Amino acid sequence: MTEIASRKLRYAMVGGGRDAFIGGVHRKAMALDGQIELVAGALSSSPDKARASGRDLGLADDRNHGDWQALLADELKRPEGERIDFVSIVTPNHVHFPVAQAFAEAGFHVVCDKPLVHTREQADALVATVAKQGTVFGVTYNYTGYPMVRQAREMVRSDQIGEVRKVVVEYNQGWLASHVEGGTNKQADWRTDPARSGAAGAIGDIGSHAENLVATVTGLQIESLCADLGALVPGRMLDDDGSLLLRFDGGARGVLIASQINTGLENDLRLRVSGTLGTLEWRQEQPSRLVHLPHDGPLRVLTRGAAWLCESAQRASRLPAGHPEGFIEAFANVYAGVAADIRARLAGQPADPLDADYPRVEDGARGVRFIERTVASSKSELKWTPW
Amino acid sequence: MTEIASRKLRYAMVGGGRDAFIGGVHRKAMALDGQIELVAGALSSSPDKARASGRDLGLADDRNHGDWQALLADELKRPEGERIDFVSIVTPNHVHFPVAQAFAEAGFHVVCDKPLVHTREQADALVATVAKQGTVFGVTYNYTGYPMVRQAREMVRSDQIGEVRKVVVEYNQGWLASHVEGGTNKQADWRTDPARSGAAGAIGDIGSHAENLVATVTGLQIESLCADLGALVPGRMLDDDGSLLLRFDGGARGVLIASQINTGLENDLRLRVSGTLGTLEWRQEQPSRLVHLPHDGPLRVLTRGAAWLCESAQRASRLPAGHPEGFIEAFANVYAGVAADIRARLAGQPADPLDADYPRVEDGARGVRFIERTVASSKSELKWTPW
Amino acid sequence: MTEIASRKLRYAMVGGGRDAFIGGVHRKAMALDGQIELVAGALSSSPDKARASGRDLGLADDRNHGDWQALLADELKRPEGERIDFVSIVTPNHVHFPVAQAFAEAGFHVVCDKPLVHTREQADALVATVAKQGTVFGVTYNYTGYPMVRQAREMVRSDQIGEVRKVVVEYNQGWLASHVEGGTNKQADWRTDPARSGAAGAIGDIGSHAENLVATVTGLQIESLCADLGALVPGRMLDDDGSLLLRFDGGARGVLIASQINTGLENDLRLRVSGTLGTLEWRQEQPSRLVHLPHDGPLRVLTRGAAWLCESAQRASRLPAGHPEGFIEAFANVYAGVAADIRARLAGQPADPLDADYPRVEDGARGVRFIERTVASSKSELKWTPW
Amino acid sequence: MTEIASRKLRYAMVGGGRDAFIGGVHRKAMALDGQIELVAGALSSSPDKARASGRDLGLADDRNHGDWQALLADELKRPEGERIDFVSIVTPNHVHFPVAQAFAEAGFHVVCDKPLVHTREQADALVATVAKQGTVFGVTYNYTGYPMVRQAREMVRSDQIGEVRKVVVEYNQGWLASHVEGGTNKQADWRTDPARSGAAGAIGDIGSHAENLVATVTGLQIESLCADLGALVPGRMLDDDGSLLLRFDGGARGVLIASQINTGLENDLRLRVSGTLGTLEWRQEQPSRLVHLPHDGPLRVLTRGAAWLCESAQRASRLPAGHPEGFIEAFANVYAGVAADIRARLAGQPADPLDADYPRVEDGARGVRFIERTVASSKSELKWTPW
Repeated sequence: MTEIASRKLRYAMVGGGRDAFIGGVHRKAMALDGQIELVAGALSSSPDKARASGRDLGLADDRNHGDWQALLADELKRPEGERIDFVSIVTPNHVHFPVAQAFAEAGFHVVCDKPLVHTREQADALVATVAKQGTVFGVTYNYTGYPMVRQAREMVRSDQIGEVRKVVVEYNQGWLASHVEGGTNKQADWRTDPARSGAAGAIGDIGSHAENLVATVTGLQIESLCADLGALVPGRMLDDDGSLLLRFDGGARGVLIASQINTGLENDLRLRVSGTLGTLEWRQEQPSRLVHLPHDGPLRVLTRGAAWLCESAQRASRLPAGHPEGFIEAFANVYAGVAADIRARLAGQPADPLDADYPRVEDGARGVRFIERTVASSKSELKWTPW
Repeated sequence: MTEIASRKLRYAMVGGGRDAFIGGVHRKAMALDGQIELVAGALSSSPDKARASGRDLGLADDRNHGDWQALLADELKRPEGERIDFVSIVTPNHVHFPVAQAFAEAGFHVVCDKPLVHTREQADALVATVAKQGTVFGVTYNYTGYPMVRQAREMVRSDQIGEVRKVVVEYNQGWLASHVEGGTNKQADWRTDPARSGAAGAIGDIGSHAENLVATVTGLQIESLCADLGALVPGRMLDDDGSLLLRFDGGARGVLIASQINTGLENDLRLRVSGTLGTLEWRQEQPSRLVHLPHDGPLRVLTRGAAWLCESAQRASRLPAGHPEGFIEAFANVYAGVAADIRARLAGQPADPLDADYPRVEDGARGVRFIERTVASSKSELKWTPW
Repeated sequence: MTEIASRKLRYAMVGGGRDAFIGGVHRKAMALDGQIELVAGALSSSPDKARASGRDLGLADDRNHGDWQALLADELKRPEGERIDFVSIVTPNHVHFPVAQAFAEAGFHVVCDKPLVHTREQADALVATVAKQGTVFGVTYNYTGYPMVRQAREMVRSDQIGEVRKVVVEYNQGWLASHVEGGTNKQADWRTDPARSGAAGAIGDIGSHAENLVATVTGLQIESLCADLGALVPGRMLDDDGSLLLRFDGGARGVLIASQINTGLENDLRLRVSGTLGTLEWRQEQPSRLVHLPHDGPLRVLTRGAAWLCESAQRASRLPAGHPEGFIEAFANVYAGVAADIRARLAGQPADPLDADYPRVEDGARGVRFIERTVASSKSELKWTPW
Repeated sequence: MTEIASRKLRYAMVGGGRDAFIGGVHRKAMALDGQIELVAGALSSSPDKARASGRDLGLADDRNHGDWQALLADELKRPEGERIDFVSIVTPNHVHFPVAQAFAEAGFHVVCDKPLVHTREQADALVATVAKQGTVFGVTYNYTGYPMVRQAREMVRSDQIGEVRKVVVEYNQGWLASHVEGGTNKQADWRTDPARSGAAGAIGDIGSHAENLVATVTGLQIESLCADLGALVPGRMLDDDGSLLLRFDGGARGVLIASQINTGLENDLRLRVSGTLGTLEWRQEQPSRLVHLPHDGPLRVLTRGAAWLCESAQRASRLPAGHPEGFIEAFANVYAGVAADIRARLAGQPADPLDADYPRVEDGARGVRFIERTVASSKSELKWTPW
């Protein structure tokens, strides 16, 4: 992770003001390597809160806007040497589409949180816009930024576990095990509200991470799925627990679990992929370890920072082995990938694919499709809902 | 675990001769506490092998039989003070029913391996016979003999995790990841053969343990299920991988996975039960630990041998904390439960339920039902197959 | 682990009656494989308790003795085909010497618990007697019976971790963290009493296991040591906490910790051996795992039952991988080694060293030496006390 | 972790240029929260490399110096509103003293890496200077910045584990298991060179962290120590392996191990503290977990981010539980403590001690004392060397 570059990239943030959670994570992730700096923003849907939040973060008054439309208009007026290099969208889900579409349409590079948008139509529109503009569009499926996820992906690609037969992915949390919405918990509030969160609760919020993790590591395409979504906490409007059977093209089978009512569990995203030659296991809560169980030899634990990891994992690492890296570093790796792509375009050169390694608008669109198909399956009496 | 008793119980074994696996485990489990002794047997379906096996084990010639019919006939002729107290049936699955039915019908106490029998009709017949005779009938769902499984059961019963909402049980192995049948692996051979194993492969062999573990710990009754069974190894005749969605009476949801193609995994039976107040996690490969995650406090690890465990867990323990117990001790606990029940009958007294704690013929019958419903669901195009 | 043998070996037990702890473990260990049977005993220093205990265990009246002298006299009078094959001594430490010496002198094979005796003179006398008689003498350093300890030993011997440079062994318990002696805890009572336990407390009770584990796995000889023993619980008469610096012949360094005042710890014996090519880590509380950290590749976890373990580890295993074995199996392996050696003598043939694999009287004597040198060092103002 | 403050603090860095390791960590740690910015530097002892490194990091030319003397002179000439708020010294050890002394003497706040200086005389001089000037002086014993270390400290202070009796601290690495000095490994090179590293190798580099961790968590003062230091890799000039017995004021005992020749180990700093009421265990490689073993109840695992942690641990946390934080966050917490203290002085108000929580010059001086006493003990033939 080099700190060397000609200049820092400049970004504006939409959302992420006072009381928000994920916006601060995005900012820390971008600050970490000293290569990206915040220069403008429209940090809340409430203009007053937006401006107060911008002042907290030291934004100049003329780049601290009350709404994203003003931000966009202002940026378009600025000379190129001053203009933002990209916008980072960290609002609640329902705001993603209009902002992303407007900035992409205006030719800006975009980073947007997940799930990308609410509907397949929105996703298709966004994919088309990005294709038309030829701009960079990253989606912060941050868990795929972990070095050991990249190592797992490489081990599948290079046939180290053989043909994949079974995939089990779980994302278990406990923080929504009680009816906490409607109170002071702002995170709980919007995530359980269909108007802001979308057609899905747990499946959208965390199930989409699980889907992305499977797709990233295995490269498998879901062929059909069978979902059972439930709102197990009385009074909840969206699913807080979901389990799916999966069938993949080529014959592999899978199970995906996303649940936010597992009392006592924190952020338990875990993946197991079994192939004909071996099995891989990874857990987000111990992200620097990748367990490899060969069919014909002892279990191995690969750890971040080791000399024998693949190049992609090496580049995603900042510290020597044994010096724990975490969530923010993984997040920063997504941004580092976006930044590499933007810098390559600024330089008029093709990006090194090992650097420009980040989830793209198509990954976000596939995630939207996954949510839609899952909700459809959950309402169906038939076992299998095709992709 | 007392070693004190008036006399050792006497048993005969059917199956478990040379080359068998599980018979030796049963014998070690019975030998462990010095309270049960082998006195007779018909140890193989091949008369010669049966007798050779009996000689290996030191059986007297007149109690070392070539087939189980001869064993039964001989026992019935002996005076009561010499006759076996019970028979232990450790044959391949397809032999369970005739032997169990004949011995139960003749008034003998019986211990039989799982899955109990092949069909619901057989199971019903056996339950009826045992009820009619009033005899003891144990089924060696050995995993429920672990002290920490009993602790988990008690914690659910005494409402320490509140109302159960979500159950995830997995039983993953890797030993059938290749096409090993037809060779020298006798275990693989009969377990993948419908004629001897029954209508199910992995679901019968290990899925039935998973079902029993869930039923034992949670007491929940499956209301409907949705199964996807597959024979993922080319040429295999029975399922080697299965995943199920479960719905329980009362609204809890579940997932059950049983798979024997998870390369590198050994005997990975694990259970997670989330209730409104907390979650329990247990893994067979570390059987002396029970993880309890309260909703409102730090994770706790309960360990075998601790003074604060429930009485049922205490009685299932032989050694102080930190002195590992394992698979054979759990197996021995099932036999200790059966023995306590038989001794109570010999003494003409009611058994202490904390001692006579073992899976019964009804549990075995429910397991047969589970397999049957799972196979039916797997063939159905509808999502839910009722219990 | 074969169950096949011409006849069961017969043993007498001295000590291990009602209220004792370790005697029952020895009996279960011997019962496990069905190859060794209890036929005589003098089970307590109290004649009445001895006989009552013998009746509990089903001893015939004429072989159920009130003291060990009567047992010995009686055995000597019996014809060879009826006489015990060996005696197992499981009394408190101070009784080991007279019993072991008398039975060995009389030509009997002996198994004795550790620490072997109280003084170096006693140890030398016993070694001489055994040498003179040519009899079998096993010492139940049971932890070396674990398959993965044998695997570790083999990996050191076959140079898989290179030249050993650093050894850290710890044996931590918490059960003596309070002043429990003088109450109903019989185990605590004699182990903290110099008259019965010997010159050392924790160092004798558990430190001697640690010493034996190091010697067994590494083959290294202590050249000098530096000990700090303390009785940290007010009023205690013997050490309950000890830490030692070690220097080995050839230049390796080490640390040995044995402490019984580590509140909350159970039976935490652990070993780490670092060589020039790699490190091995083993913990008794997870005995089926051996962690191997090569200098130039990822961590590996070797597990009991795997096909790639050494022959010695394979033979010490009873169940397939993933089916936990524990403390009793390890104990049983020590007895299986003794039994193999006795059977070879009965057959007039040399024993297979991979079968007759057990700690011998010389190991016991070295352990006595270790305790003596440690106590001497603890009283010395000089840093190093030579071996 | 608030991002809100009136203005960013400005710092200069001495050392940490191209090829350096720890300087980049310091910079990332300071960048993380967006509250501290690099404005000046003298980034290498080689003027050309210093300036090239400064350009990499975007320093203005007039604040990018070839040596630290020039940096100091320049800063003293600048008006207060532009001047740095503090200097961060991240050079090899032998340069710490002159730089720290000069900047402190000039009235600047200072952050300096550890071990602080080479000799006790230097340490005393520095303590005196800081006392005289009344300035802030932080030492980056970064491991004490982990939230769970602060939780452990609080649990000892508030008597949750009772009176401390036994402390075992280990810091094991493997990266110096071969003779890597003299090659391209710049880190290995200076750390094994007495002229640059000081009188100690492993004890200075990592043993000092272990000492600081013990002192921070337990508050215990070493009364005497007994050390065995060795250079186990042939040709090495400084110790690469050390083991110490410790006695603390008040009677507690301890063991400290610091070794860099443990092949395969990464950065294995671990602490166990046993008191009369319970034991605490912490491992740097899983920093978000603190294991608490009460004497009278089940093991508990406290995790970062939980609502029931102490205020000090809460403030040291940035993300919800289950979202891994790591080494850089801990490092950032040390800087956050320094920053809080500087900001309080800027505001003319007393600092909140829960915010201004960082290792100070006195901690650094105690660490120097520890190294000196350890080296003296290692050369002594007497067992105990007084503090």
